[in-house]
Amino acid sequence: MSEALTVETVAEWLARSPFIRFMNLTVESLDEKAQTITMTMPMRPEFERGAGTGQFHGGPIASFIDTVGDYAVALVLKSGVPTINFRVDYLRPSFGAFLRGTAIVRRLGRTVAVVDIDVTDDQGRLCAVGRGTYAAQAG
Amino acid sequence: MSEALTVETVAEWLARSPFIRFMNLTVESLDEKAQTITMTMPMRPEFERGAGTGQFHGGPIASFIDTVGDYAVALVLKSGVPTINFRVDYLRPSFGAFLRGTAIVRRLGRTVAVVDIDVTDDQGRLCAVGRGTYAAQAG
Amino acid sequence: MSEALTVETVAEWLARSPFIRFMNLTVESLDEKAQTITMTMPMRPEFERGAGTGQFHGGPIASFIDTVGDYAVALVLKSGVPTINFRVDYLRPSFGAFLRGTAIVRRLGRTVAVVDIDVTDDQGRLCAVGRGTYAAQAG
Amino acid sequence: MSEALTVETVAEWLARSPFIRFMNLTVESLDEKAQTITMTMPMRPEFERGAGTGQFHGGPIASFIDTVGDYAVALVLKSGVPTINFRVDYLRPSFGAFLRGTAIVRRLGRTVAVVDIDVTDDQGRLCAVGRGTYAAQAG
Repeated sequence: MSEALTVETVAEWLARSPFIRFMNLTVESLDEKAQTITMTMPMRPEFERGAGTGQFHGGPIASFIDTVGDYAVALVLKSGVPTINFRVDYLRPSFGAFLRGTAIVRRLGRTVAVVDIDVTDDQGRLCAVGRGTYAAQAG
Repeated sequence: MSEALTVETVAEWLARSPFIRFMNLTVESLDEKAQTITMTMPMRPEFERGAGTGQFHGGPIASFIDTVGDYAVALVLKSGVPTINFRVDYLRPSFGAFLRGTAIVRRLGRTVAVVDIDVTDDQGRLCAVGRGTYAAQAG
Repeated sequence: MSEALTVETVAEWLARSPFIRFMNLTVESLDEKAQTITMTMPMRPEFERGAGTGQFHGGPIASFIDTVGDYAVALVLKSGVPTINFRVDYLRPSFGAFLRGTAIVRRLGRTVAVVDIDVTDDQGRLCAVGRGTYAAQAG
Repeated sequence: MSEALTVETVAEWLARSPFIRFMNLTVESLDEKAQTITMTMPMRPEFERGAGTGQFHGGPIASFIDTVGDYAVALVLKSGVPTINFRVDYLRPSFGAFLRGTAIVRRLGRTVAVVDIDVTDDQGRLCAVGRGTYAAQAG
């Protein structure tokens, strides 16, 4: 019997990666059965698109999408997995204290997992959407 | 008559963005007529996937792809432009002192530009490929 | 005052295109306010992947995704619009008498619209997902 | 010792699929070592976007991209393989007697293959580009 996965366990996994630590992600909630996870990423000066604008650059948004999607798969596989590819669509400029990302596994096959990731700002506006293909085996 | 664009001018544009400064990009070469640009991004501790592994996390690679692609369009439009969407495919784990990214505009239409970006490691191995759609007007 | 859009009106639009006629699409339902539309596409011998297998080839599935997504935007713009790009992920082999596709506009901006399309088989199993960028102006 | 693959052999593979037969593809050339293949697809009335316009609908173009990409992988694996996902970008409206598609394998890994596909019209103009991920094992 495997123990239920907790927010704390995922936080420990995240902390092993220097880049993920740099993103300062917080796991807000997760649901193993529904294969969904929600994280937030706070603004930091290095993430600004233009100096003093308070706008998130697209790079950190893409990085956030990649990682939240990855950990939706990790809920099932109990380990981060290699990203095979992903697409990000930027829907509006993203401002505010933090971004919230929710990922849900659309399909976990033998070879790959397909995950959708929605990103909202701190006012709840949809800012970006991601769709990623991840290896369905830890590696 | 517009002056020819130089590596130094593009470097100045890049320096305006805190996130791009954080990536420490160097413009190696550009060709306005061929609509292509090449940049490098050095490894830094915050970019590691696993601590001490020397492997680039996929997030900085995606961010690099987004930015190199954007500045291929900027060669023509003389300004960075909003990214509409992009796809990144990771082809092999990426190690080494730096990554090199080359972007080429495949089509610059009235509404959008489509750009291909290839990323190699410091041994010249192809590590990742990107394809992005950017707004065809400065904004 | 503009009249409410009906299933019959969209069916007339679809009938103008020889390729869409070939796909034999039926509009099941639409909701202008929610910016969502559902269509079905019946199997036909020319759509088989392998002879006698009853499996839809990926080509007709991609074509179906492109078209259902397009008409979600058309609900708002009152005209089909050019597709800029789209991505399709095949989640499982698709069999059965027909496929059902539901598209929803995730964001309609000034320049482009982003649309999600889910495709299920006649048993309701999710077979493929699409995400497309369309021009936000008729053309 | 395996025999060299010929245009005729690939043509036989293509003929097994009713949908591919419907597309009437011709294999123009292939290079097993370079992992590249070129095919053409002639216009037919069912492929028109608007009646009498002579413009290819995006659906057949996407289908063509999917198939040419698949057979670039087949050159190596000696069998068509499942498409995992692909992206198509439409660069300009496509007219003319036929389209020509050239696919090249960018990376053939243990799990997946990544392939680029360029589509030109009968005047040699680049009309669409595709990028696909295919299973790296026959199935």
